Amino acid sequence: MIAWSKRGFLLVLIFTAACGGSAPTETAAPPVTVAPTDPLPSWNDGSSKRAILDFVARVTKEGGPEFVPVPERIATFDNDGTLWAEKPVPFQLLFAFDRVKALAPQRPDWKTKEPFASLLKGDMAGVAAAGVKGVVQIMAATHSGMTTEEFSQTVQAWISTAKHPETGRLLTDMVYQPMLELLAYLRANRFKTFIVSGGGVEFMRPWTERVYGIPPEQVVGSSGKLKLEVRDGQPVLIKLPEVDLIDDKEGKPVGIQSRIGRRPIAAFGNSDGDLQMLQWAMAGRGARFALFVHHDDATREYAYDRADKLQQFNKGWDEAVARGWTVASMKDDWNTVFPPAKDQASRK
Amino acid sequence: MIAWSKRGFLLVLIFTAACGGSAPTETAAPPVTVAPTDPLPSWNDGSSKRAILDFVARVTKEGGPEFVPVPERIATFDNDGTLWAEKPVPFQLLFAFDRVKALAPQRPDWKTKEPFASLLKGDMAGVAAAGVKGVVQIMAATHSGMTTEEFSQTVQAWISTAKHPETGRLLTDMVYQPMLELLAYLRANRFKTFIVSGGGVEFMRPWTERVYGIPPEQVVGSSGKLKLEVRDGQPVLIKLPEVDLIDDKEGKPVGIQSRIGRRPIAAFGNSDGDLQMLQWAMAGRGARFALFVHHDDATREYAYDRADKLQQFNKGWDEAVARGWTVASMKDDWNTVFPPAKDQASRK
Repeated sequence: MIAWSKRGFLLVLIFTAACGGSAPTETAAPPVTVAPTDPLPSWNDGSSKRAILDFVARVTKEGGPEFVPVPERIATFDNDGTLWAEKPVPFQLLFAFDRVKALAPQRPDWKTKEPFASLLKGDMAGVAAAGVKGVVQIMAATHSGMTTEEFSQTVQAWISTAKHPETGRLLTDMVYQPMLELLAYLRANRFKTFIVSGGGVEFMRPWTERVYGIPPEQVVGSSGKLKLEVRDGQPVLIKLPEVDLIDDKEGKPVGIQSRIGRRPIAAFGNSDGDLQMLQWAMAGRGARFALFVHHDDATREYAYDRADKLQQFNKGWDEAVARGWTVASMKDDWNTVFPPAKDQASRK
Repeated sequence: MIAWSKRGFLLVLIFTAACGGSAPTETAAPPVTVAPTDPLPSWNDGSSKRAILDFVARVTKEGGPEFVPVPERIATFDNDGTLWAEKPVPFQLLFAFDRVKALAPQRPDWKTKEPFASLLKGDMAGVAAAGVKGVVQIMAATHSGMTTEEFSQTVQAWISTAKHPETGRLLTDMVYQPMLELLAYLRANRFKTFIVSGGGVEFMRPWTERVYGIPPEQVVGSSGKLKLEVRDGQPVLIKLPEVDLIDDKEGKPVGIQSRIGRRPIAAFGNSDGDLQMLQWAMAGRGARFALFVHHDDATREYAYDRADKLQQFNKGWDEAVARGWTVASMKDDWNTVFPPAKDQASRK
């Protein structure tokens, strides 16, 4: 899929190296003693937590100078790296690889066709050697040509068992407990929470409601074009291998305006791909909030920022510092990273 | 704007004739005596009203065989001709014409350039003579080139005073009282109500929350592409004269899937442009509801259906009859068409 070409280029650059990287080890978080009213128990007391609590207090104080009416309390969250992990590679790519393997029996031609042949042999260096074109081919073969319902069912079945290649946890357990608390806290304060992600919208919608409490209609993501057809007398929508929206960088404000139509008053990201979204949120009138999650915890998760080839956090960091936005340190601000595994048997 | 070319072609065909058509006269509705619990007092007792009440009762009955969980209670409504009037021409075209007049002092070249010259002289036959190309030029000149914020403010200012060319009522009073009750009734039963309209999304969003109780993020419509730029150090989104989505006919299921991501269980329209949306809603599993508003009331509103050149209700009518969908007669099913004028002084 063409939407993936740019990202794909970066992916293949680091693919082999990343897969050989060190695995994070999540030790079970000790029971945390908190005041019963603390809405963010996984956040350590510090400037990041205080900035969040202060912002929410200001915009929800009726009669206060920065009060924001409920309908305008829109908060947008990046997904990969902000709500769930994105290393060693974005999980949607793991889905694509698994789909190639699942579809292989129907595609005998793949045995001799790159990058499929290498992928089926487990030769990741071979996949990487196929370059951008190879990743685009893999994405197109696994993300288009079916109906939206078929794709949704495939994602749902996959995500219910798919595990992280390094931690062995369910991917849906590789979400950040402090961010789940933040989502719930904002909703309790009558914010409407949206995902605005470079990931595929049809890949996220089947599970975001269950995992994050964010319904499909509040998920904005990259998307391919759709075509209405009639099959067996019933209308179906076919996923085409043509780009509709690349919801990354400059595309994020476009996705927000075209799908939501209202500027968020709070935005959350973790890399330079989110910078334009945070700028867009902050450029509105009245009280505003912007936060970057900084991946600086190689022990419990991963540590990457300025030098990362795929999910670089460089310009965004500089701008956050210059403008006084919040940069949350995963290491220092979070006393827990991941929630307890829902599937205990899946833990290593 | 290219999105308007097809519609524009139909528009110019009927434009002169339509403007010379007979004006509807809305007599103030007499006070209606209803049971205090009637959620749809402007609907006469009859099969249409009973079908609505029956459907809502079935899908909201906990433990019942057709119960639908709250998050899946998605209802989509066409706008022009379904929630507000669309004759003599869709009101967005009135906006475009008024914008040409407002912008004329900055565009001296329009004095000699068609279709602007004819429009500025009030020569509608001359505008019609410019054909599709003329309408496209008018739409492009009035709907692109500015920021989304500028456009939104222009629409808001215009709609606060714009009046219907035949009734003299505010356009926002040309909404259908029975449909306002239906929207409120569905929301009271925890439906999420969406607009899915061929009209421009940026034209509707500035006022749908105030008029219908439908927030911007629940409005899907035709749209042009957007481009992020930085002006005076601030990010802005520029409306481009290129089509993003034509949210009509086959485009409605596409708009629903790409923006909402969940199939509606109830859909409401009034013309063949809505047929694919109703088919899409009805093709899902479980209890479903589809309703067409039939404009058969020349006395209180307008009467048009199979023979109408712009808003034809022909294939949709046949399919509704064949499949047992609800066709609501404006004449017989509605005891009131429009709400009392909010601006009494504006009434003729």
